[in-house]
Amino acid sequence: MKESQGRNAALQRVLDRLGEDEPKALERLFRLLAIPSISTDPAYHQSCLDAAESCAALLRGSGFEARVVPTSGKPMVVGHWRGSNASSRRILFYGHYDVQPPDPLEQWDVSPFEARLAEDPQHGKIIVARGASDDKGQLMTFIEAARAWIDAYGSLPLDVSVLIEGEEESGSPSLEPFLAAHGDELKADLALVCDTGQWDADTPAITAFLRGLAFSEITIGGPSRDLHSGIYGGPALNPLRVLADILAALHDDEGRVTIPGFYDGISPPAPATLASWRALGFNEAGFLGDVGLSEPAGEKGLALLEQLWSRPTAEINGIVGGYGGPGTKTVIPAQATAKLSFRLVPGQDPAKILSGLRQLVTDRLPPDAKVSFAHESGSPAVGFDTGAPDFVAAARALEAEWGKAPVIAGCGASIPIVESFRAKLGMDSLLVGFALDDDRIHSPNEKYNLRSFTKGARSWARILAELGAIGDAGRA
Amino acid sequence: MKESQGRNAALQRVLDRLGEDEPKALERLFRLLAIPSISTDPAYHQSCLDAAESCAALLRGSGFEARVVPTSGKPMVVGHWRGSNASSRRILFYGHYDVQPPDPLEQWDVSPFEARLAEDPQHGKIIVARGASDDKGQLMTFIEAARAWIDAYGSLPLDVSVLIEGEEESGSPSLEPFLAAHGDELKADLALVCDTGQWDADTPAITAFLRGLAFSEITIGGPSRDLHSGIYGGPALNPLRVLADILAALHDDEGRVTIPGFYDGISPPAPATLASWRALGFNEAGFLGDVGLSEPAGEKGLALLEQLWSRPTAEINGIVGGYGGPGTKTVIPAQATAKLSFRLVPGQDPAKILSGLRQLVTDRLPPDAKVSFAHESGSPAVGFDTGAPDFVAAARALEAEWGKAPVIAGCGASIPIVESFRAKLGMDSLLVGFALDDDRIHSPNEKYNLRSFTKGARSWARILAELGAIGDAGRA
Repeated sequence: MKESQGRNAALQRVLDRLGEDEPKALERLFRLLAIPSISTDPAYHQSCLDAAESCAALLRGSGFEARVVPTSGKPMVVGHWRGSNASSRRILFYGHYDVQPPDPLEQWDVSPFEARLAEDPQHGKIIVARGASDDKGQLMTFIEAARAWIDAYGSLPLDVSVLIEGEEESGSPSLEPFLAAHGDELKADLALVCDTGQWDADTPAITAFLRGLAFSEITIGGPSRDLHSGIYGGPALNPLRVLADILAALHDDEGRVTIPGFYDGISPPAPATLASWRALGFNEAGFLGDVGLSEPAGEKGLALLEQLWSRPTAEINGIVGGYGGPGTKTVIPAQATAKLSFRLVPGQDPAKILSGLRQLVTDRLPPDAKVSFAHESGSPAVGFDTGAPDFVAAARALEAEWGKAPVIAGCGASIPIVESFRAKLGMDSLLVGFALDDDRIHSPNEKYNLRSFTKGARSWARILAELGAIGDAGRA
Repeated sequence: MKESQGRNAALQRVLDRLGEDEPKALERLFRLLAIPSISTDPAYHQSCLDAAESCAALLRGSGFEARVVPTSGKPMVVGHWRGSNASSRRILFYGHYDVQPPDPLEQWDVSPFEARLAEDPQHGKIIVARGASDDKGQLMTFIEAARAWIDAYGSLPLDVSVLIEGEEESGSPSLEPFLAAHGDELKADLALVCDTGQWDADTPAITAFLRGLAFSEITIGGPSRDLHSGIYGGPALNPLRVLADILAALHDDEGRVTIPGFYDGISPPAPATLASWRALGFNEAGFLGDVGLSEPAGEKGLALLEQLWSRPTAEINGIVGGYGGPGTKTVIPAQATAKLSFRLVPGQDPAKILSGLRQLVTDRLPPDAKVSFAHESGSPAVGFDTGAPDFVAAARALEAEWGKAPVIAGCGASIPIVESFRAKLGMDSLLVGFALDDDRIHSPNEKYNLRSFTKGARSWARILAELGAIGDAGRA
């Protein structure tokens, strides 16, 4: 009882410290947001290096040892804080410093890399910038919580390592080799990942289920050069037409994906799980209405949340081919390219999906058409034990901060690190984040509520206390 | 007999003059080719104005009165040479100073607007530049022929007007209003148009049949902003998928266009016409093999020349939507656009084709999808009387220059001016050009054989003599 009171007093000092330090914490976040660390575009490589150095400096400023470790792609940032007790439990926090490209630039109301506070009629103060939510704002909630613990209390409640990568938005190609080489240094009792969202602005969430992701880029080749459609139109194969035929064939009339073996190995969600999702009273009309849509466009006969959390997809993310400038050009292009991605659910093997795609495309190629595949990568879906002590402790901490139990949610998006931590380091992840559905991540005018940032840091401060208490109990 | 001998002597002086003046003629052409007069891209508007002024200066230098006439788009160049005999027959020469965009720039071996002579293993000396063939090289064959007549003989064999437009590559929006306003000034006994090709490098051609052309740009709108495919993928409508479905539906399995009413009003070519085309012994394998293809991809069951000269098409010229940069981006875009063009044959009404397209697209739109149409324009196909005296005279002149009778050809491409001359000014056109199928017009490394340029100018010098003789005979 005494120890518990001590912890509560310590936690209160940490929370107070977070409140006092908020203006400086915002300054630190804004400086990080000013770096255009776009990992998918080679033109921004130096900015990615700069962002990595900034993250390491932020960790050192908070009391960690930290270094930037080169990879064959973007560097990793690794930090450690170690208490005196060698037998302490240890956690590994993960975030990413890279961001999505900001285009289309003309749709931003502000410059995407000049973060600023704006007033939002619904949310009050919001932070507007590329990466404000995904993931710089989110990862800074944890770093600020750790800084406050060390500032206010002199130490963290348990040993903490930090891994910040720079390739999350480009398929994390360096991650698995890095985990293989530095596994002993990084392995912990639990990973904390802050790259997910809340249920709504007032309700926290722990994400226990994530869709996987597979990528492919298809290029269809036809004539050996661009042709004039008057001189060749009719007899000449048009790669854009071949591509359209293939892309149209990816779905059947019921909205199901036609890739051979696409649904193999998938189990439908347990009836209890489905029932709990239905009990959430999810506002389908509001979710779609926020983005100008009125009815679910996916597989017929499924509720929206069921589609998002338990069904795989095939999406066309971009097409490039022929003349794209102003006006017209009567060209038959030599080639055409489509960027595709697939959201996966447990039971699906990304390699098998990509191989099925190759088969579908190859089967539909007309004479004289050639195909090449590029940027193929993938990570499977993943799910967690919601009854584990760490999971329960984190839920208690979130309830203390928000006054409501967190929703145990699924997530339609993929976080490949979570699968890698499990497969390579035998480590489960606790997925807690403070993003909201309307944060416009990957889109113009990305934002993060100031409240997400401040209460997010407070939530992590509480979670650190709870996870530390498990360690104390374990030693007792 | 004496008069005929006099004409022959005069013609020989003109042909000699063309030979002497060739180096300077090439310099004049190269200066015109250096102007990037891309009419489809507003960024090159000033270059179009510069090219118009250059054409007017070239006409004045050849002995014409010439002026640049503003329009609401690119200006027209109008020139006149008038003999002393007021009852003279009169011809109107037409060409265009605008060119296609040079992209993809990286596929050019040389800078597209720095014309130079290169050595080609098959053709000997060639002129490489955007517009070398289409249409600056071609139009200069006529201006040089006229210059040589005036230089060598002091006058042209008949009255000649010249009209050079700057919007041929962008649908000629200003042409009809211009013809309506300046019809009296421009109307002549015959139009000469130099924007077509030879049968092969040694065989001239007169084109008696041209496909028409209709354009449309379709934009499909879905969500009100770009979406993250993890958060929204599945339930959210993807405009790229809607677009692919629509584009794939444009053709059936037989390669026929599915637009409602697309083939209405079309008559098959007369059996005699088809037989003459077959007698040409067209090298299908060579035509396709030159551009890396091996078999006709169009409507099943039709010979290639029949497809090109007598069948309509629907082509996708470009698609823009979603992420097109390097790497991947898991976005569901707010909109996606396709640029389409249709090659038309006699009997088809462009307005009806575009209206049928709208119907096809609208009928296939799923809930929540929006569509808009832009850049709609069109001109019908056209054919000429191959027994008319002017036609026969021109054929005789070409045979004298090339040592072979010209092929009376069809052309898969459209020259809207020809339909406008007929509809607005009641004037037939004589379509003679010296381009070759391998000139790579509208593609990287566009070229014009030096021989096309020099023998082209000689051909026009002879055609002017023959057409002048018809006028003399008429007065006799």
